[in-house]
Amino acid sequence: MSAGEGGNGSEDGDERDGGESEAVAEAIAVRRELVDEALATRLPVAEPERLYRASRHLLDAGGKRLRPVVALLVAEALVDVEPLSEDYRAFPTLDAADDARSEDASVDDTRIDVMTAAASIEVIQSFTLIHDDIMDDDDLRRGVPSVHHEYDLETAILAGDTLYAKAFEFMLDTGAPAERSVAALSALARTCTAICEGQALDVGFESRGDVTAAEYLGMIEQKTAVLYAAAARVPGVLLGADAETVEALAGYGLDVGRAFQIRDDLLDLTAPAERLGKRRGSDLIEGKRTLVTLHAREQGVDVDGLLGDPGAVTDREIDAAVERLDAAGSIAYARETSRELVERGKGRLDALPDNEARARLRELAEYLIDRGY
Amino acid sequence: MSAGEGGNGSEDGDERDGGESEAVAEAIAVRRELVDEALATRLPVAEPERLYRASRHLLDAGGKRLRPVVALLVAEALVDVEPLSEDYRAFPTLDAADDARSEDASVDDTRIDVMTAAASIEVIQSFTLIHDDIMDDDDLRRGVPSVHHEYDLETAILAGDTLYAKAFEFMLDTGAPAERSVAALSALARTCTAICEGQALDVGFESRGDVTAAEYLGMIEQKTAVLYAAAARVPGVLLGADAETVEALAGYGLDVGRAFQIRDDLLDLTAPAERLGKRRGSDLIEGKRTLVTLHAREQGVDVDGLLGDPGAVTDREIDAAVERLDAAGSIAYARETSRELVERGKGRLDALPDNEARARLRELAEYLIDRGY
Repeated sequence: MSAGEGGNGSEDGDERDGGESEAVAEAIAVRRELVDEALATRLPVAEPERLYRASRHLLDAGGKRLRPVVALLVAEALVDVEPLSEDYRAFPTLDAADDARSEDASVDDTRIDVMTAAASIEVIQSFTLIHDDIMDDDDLRRGVPSVHHEYDLETAILAGDTLYAKAFEFMLDTGAPAERSVAALSALARTCTAICEGQALDVGFESRGDVTAAEYLGMIEQKTAVLYAAAARVPGVLLGADAETVEALAGYGLDVGRAFQIRDDLLDLTAPAERLGKRRGSDLIEGKRTLVTLHAREQGVDVDGLLGDPGAVTDREIDAAVERLDAAGSIAYARETSRELVERGKGRLDALPDNEARARLRELAEYLIDRGY
Repeated sequence: MSAGEGGNGSEDGDERDGGESEAVAEAIAVRRELVDEALATRLPVAEPERLYRASRHLLDAGGKRLRPVVALLVAEALVDVEPLSEDYRAFPTLDAADDARSEDASVDDTRIDVMTAAASIEVIQSFTLIHDDIMDDDDLRRGVPSVHHEYDLETAILAGDTLYAKAFEFMLDTGAPAERSVAALSALARTCTAICEGQALDVGFESRGDVTAAEYLGMIEQKTAVLYAAAARVPGVLLGADAETVEALAGYGLDVGRAFQIRDDLLDLTAPAERLGKRRGSDLIEGKRTLVTLHAREQGVDVDGLLGDPGAVTDREIDAAVERLDAAGSIAYARETSRELVERGKGRLDALPDNEARARLRELAEYLIDRGY
């Protein structure tokens, strides 16, 4: 249902400044650990144990927690606090930060559990991965068996459905004033609808030969980018940002989320299997449309003829296919498109105060397209 | 994931007064039509069309809409209005009905869309049926192919996931004050978690020989009854009933919901396939635990040996198995248990004003265990 993640390592960096890259890697790593702690606390292995073990299976297998990290950084940038200086579980709101801005006295001293909101987003992501792996019958994810392979189909469907409900429970549990909770819940529900629609479009594309690049970008907006948009929007809503800022934040998520998906499609072609945590070239084998293959088709490449029998594709065939796509300029085209999206997304952050957390969000946008896995 | 429904017709009524039975049948039928209209309006076949057609597949195939009918009747009984005299889409709250009770002036003139809340509950029910049929690989539901048979596995998973999100969208769209929306959403999310846990327990029971009747009753409370509880609780929450009344309403749902599930298990053994909308004896064939088989086992019946090869079970074998269960007193035991639950559930309605809608809710409880399909 959404983009894969897995493995470790990096490759293929560009000419960015090494210091920036280190700063964002460190910013992600330290927040990721806090997110992991929150997930462990909020999603204990309760009864029925098998169901909850299956629900935790992919969360325990790793993942970079990029979406919740976006949420945490947005909160810090918005309220303009020193990074990591505030307790994410009792985060000051904008009302408290600037009393003059507040029209509702009741929220002045409210503290928001932005960590639980961030965890909610990650739990949605994990639910979509579990159901996605069933739909694609992928047997590996993050280097471990997918949930329906490790457990069974019934348990995997139910584990996804359980996480789905838990995400809503979490989002109801941030301590935000009711109006803001309702707005956050509404964003979450609409995001889930959009993800399903995007995934259905993606599946439908596989049997169509006339998909355009514009249709593809619309599809990945729904399938992938809306969850980044929710990750950036929700803290804005909960902390009391104005409507314009909230829309700018959502726009950042939509732009960098699409860039992330395009990068993911590229990695599927170029990254080694041990870094992907799954087989390289799986999209090509499954006949999935990507910006790369859509561009290549427009250049006259017989995309459907790139590989032989899908049941017996060799790595050598994948290499040859990638060479053809590269020669057609399609890999460069996809890289360029993701670069443009990242630039636009970074521009949207002008709506935030100029501070260190905002700088990290800009770098995180770069990271999404420079990451090697 | 939850109890089956399907087909038409009736059988096996008891000695109840014929007039009461007609009154509740009429009360259900007229509200069911209104629920159908609301579902058609609120769940149009949008893009991607195939996804939304699949999402509507079981809703379009029928169903008695018992849960939303409970919600509508609870609203009428609570606010003490003449049945069908008020617009369900703009229902008066208890605050408006009794200004003296209101502590919050802002909700005095609020009107609540209880119909959309009722539709939300039915949409959750439909999502669980779609995923349930995948898990059991049932090919028929309500007399039509199940969604994964009519469409495919991918589409069925996504159709269920889409309805899941839509149910939350609906529940956010009742026009209720934010505090009450949050409480309704919280009930809905916790209900979904419980349904998943109940379904996981049900699946787990199939491989256990030592399940007790008490465990079974706990399982069906989670798998089935919690959604009846939500149907009765949510209008109480949205319309501003006090906590004690809300708990009594939820208790009614838990009692009659369990009675409904026990009746459903009985019907699986006794009702003709054309009324069930699926094969008779399917629970026996699939090795599902029910109150009937658990009781029979306690009476020394070799339940697992009642049928031969699961792939080649004849109707004659089912008949013989049912006779054995009947002879052990197990069918009578299950009937009696459901009868006790219904009586207790009816008693909980004392928390409501004494009016016609309350009388219908009492009769509806009877109907749940007397229905022939």
